[in-house]
Amino acid sequence: MIVSNPVNIKYLTGIDAEGTLLITRKENVFITDGRYIESVNRVLTIDDGIIVYDIRSIREEDFENFFLFCSAVGFEENYVTYAKYKEYIYKYKIENMQETENLIEQQRTIKDEEEIGKIRQACKITDDCFKHLTEFIKIGMTEKEVAAEIEYFFKTHGAEEVSFPPIVASGANSSMPHAIPTNKKIETGDTIIIDMGCKYEGYCSDMTRTIFMDYVPEEAKTVYDLVLNNQLSTLKEYVDGGNTKIISKLVENNFEFNRYMLIHALGHGVGLDIHETPVISSRTAQTLKENMVITDEPGIYLPGKFGVRIEDTVLITKNGAVTLTNSEKNYVILKSTAQKSK
Amino acid sequence: MIVSNPVNIKYLTGIDAEGTLLITRKENVFITDGRYIESVNRVLTIDDGIIVYDIRSIREEDFENFFLFCSAVGFEENYVTYAKYKEYIYKYKIENMQETENLIEQQRTIKDEEEIGKIRQACKITDDCFKHLTEFIKIGMTEKEVAAEIEYFFKTHGAEEVSFPPIVASGANSSMPHAIPTNKKIETGDTIIIDMGCKYEGYCSDMTRTIFMDYVPEEAKTVYDLVLNNQLSTLKEYVDGGNTKIISKLVENNFEFNRYMLIHALGHGVGLDIHETPVISSRTAQTLKENMVITDEPGIYLPGKFGVRIEDTVLITKNGAVTLTNSEKNYVILKSTAQKSK
Repeated sequence: MIVSNPVNIKYLTGIDAEGTLLITRKENVFITDGRYIESVNRVLTIDDGIIVYDIRSIREEDFENFFLFCSAVGFEENYVTYAKYKEYIYKYKIENMQETENLIEQQRTIKDEEEIGKIRQACKITDDCFKHLTEFIKIGMTEKEVAAEIEYFFKTHGAEEVSFPPIVASGANSSMPHAIPTNKKIETGDTIIIDMGCKYEGYCSDMTRTIFMDYVPEEAKTVYDLVLNNQLSTLKEYVDGGNTKIISKLVENNFEFNRYMLIHALGHGVGLDIHETPVISSRTAQTLKENMVITDEPGIYLPGKFGVRIEDTVLITKNGAVTLTNSEKNYVILKSTAQKSK
Repeated sequence: MIVSNPVNIKYLTGIDAEGTLLITRKENVFITDGRYIESVNRVLTIDDGIIVYDIRSIREEDFENFFLFCSAVGFEENYVTYAKYKEYIYKYKIENMQETENLIEQQRTIKDEEEIGKIRQACKITDDCFKHLTEFIKIGMTEKEVAAEIEYFFKTHGAEEVSFPPIVASGANSSMPHAIPTNKKIETGDTIIIDMGCKYEGYCSDMTRTIFMDYVPEEAKTVYDLVLNNQLSTLKEYVDGGNTKIISKLVENNFEFNRYMLIHALGHGVGLDIHETPVISSRTAQTLKENMVITDEPGIYLPGKFGVRIEDTVLITKNGAVTLTNSEKNYVILKSTAQKSK
């Protein structure tokens, strides 16, 4: 098999560098270039059984030897571009390239102790950040300033980086699920969606909270309560053996009953990537399993008005769902006139 | 043609959202989903001549109509995965998919006034950040802290985001061209490579400086002078009509003459992506043209010891190269005992 996706390579080998991993009949080979040779050799030990080659040291005719006598060579059809696919066939003289149908991604859905520990830590840093934000955010600050603070907080509190660019969407901007932070200033009466996460030792967290500046507008109250109820009831459905299609349908139906719509997936796997298998949506049926880590993130968006999304990163255990993010989910109302307490 | 690469879609239409752009005989169509409909409609005007569809509103049998009677449909073979390629054929019932060989990427290599203006601004913010760092960096700070400061500076000084995660590599870490910032503290005598860039209205900057803590070690001096001489001589070769292979060979030969090696490309295009066509390397010959924006970044790396890289973002004009990043290139030596001046 040819492993091309760097996240899969990292998962299998610990290597964090550009290159290609070949799993052949005889040996495991990592082909990289001069920029990474030193850092790769620092990570690998003799026990890893991986031979590292500088691509410049391999002659063209040597490539054909890697998969000699292999009747089929697997590749990652969801990662490899069409041009790369053709290049592999030509370079390695492969007769039969075989789609591996997310083989490694499937393995990655079930997390081990160590992986869960890292996600837990990323979630803790995220909770700490949220707490900091409830004191940091003030009227007149721009969405961009808040987003910059989130990134700075993560990087100065043990995280390597954000797991995705934070969303800070206030007022009418919050009606766009994937809003990009703007120079809009936060005003009284604003609904503010904050969707953020960080990486700890490579593993991601993902959390959304919707908070309010000074007061909760009446309509927002109704929507918030509905979203929160569905977020909590979904947690009860997130059990070993749960069916993603049915769980998702429950929320969709409840939203529709109240004349709203669920316009995005209810959740997704989280791990080395911020978006992993499974997708929790009514379009595909998948079975939840113990030690999966997934999000629970229903949302309602009223164009031109406001939006509400509430999201936790959740671990599936034998005894049901355990939230790994634990920030406040009741109304969080920031007061512009607040005195600094203590 | 099916345009799938979001950066190409942004370049052609201004749309910054997930989706697929279809350029058909009759019309231009952007297919997206519920999350983006509102933000896309905010960007487009009637003059853009683009019809926006929610993917949920298109029936399966309607997809076949988009490319009806088209003898060949172009696709981006360097972006589209093998799985997507197969999906396109099946979904749109395409008989003949045609590789477009970086058609749009080629257009993107030549920048217009407006694009150059945005890159210029991204470079200015980068220069300002470097100036700030020469005052900010102190003995005992970790590489990660400096990297976090770079990101924070960019986001609070007009940039949307970093154009890539900054590299801050000190001491022996600087010998790895793609080092990731660690918890290593900056010490006296350290060589520090800082490679950073930001995005301004979507356009990237890219600059590297190698600076020193307290003093320049003798061996580092020799290497620094050699790298700088080559960086400056390359600037003179960066002219309209220049041949990337020859320019690159000049540096390689000069390094080898001094018993060092150039282990990465000498430069690359910069624009909406941080790495664009052309690559400036001795492996491929391409011709430099007026209004290309490319980097000039020779480097030398001594494993276990230190590294030196000096990089500018450069505009090719009729009258030769113009550096858009203009931070100090003579020895920058930070003093741990320095009194704050003024």
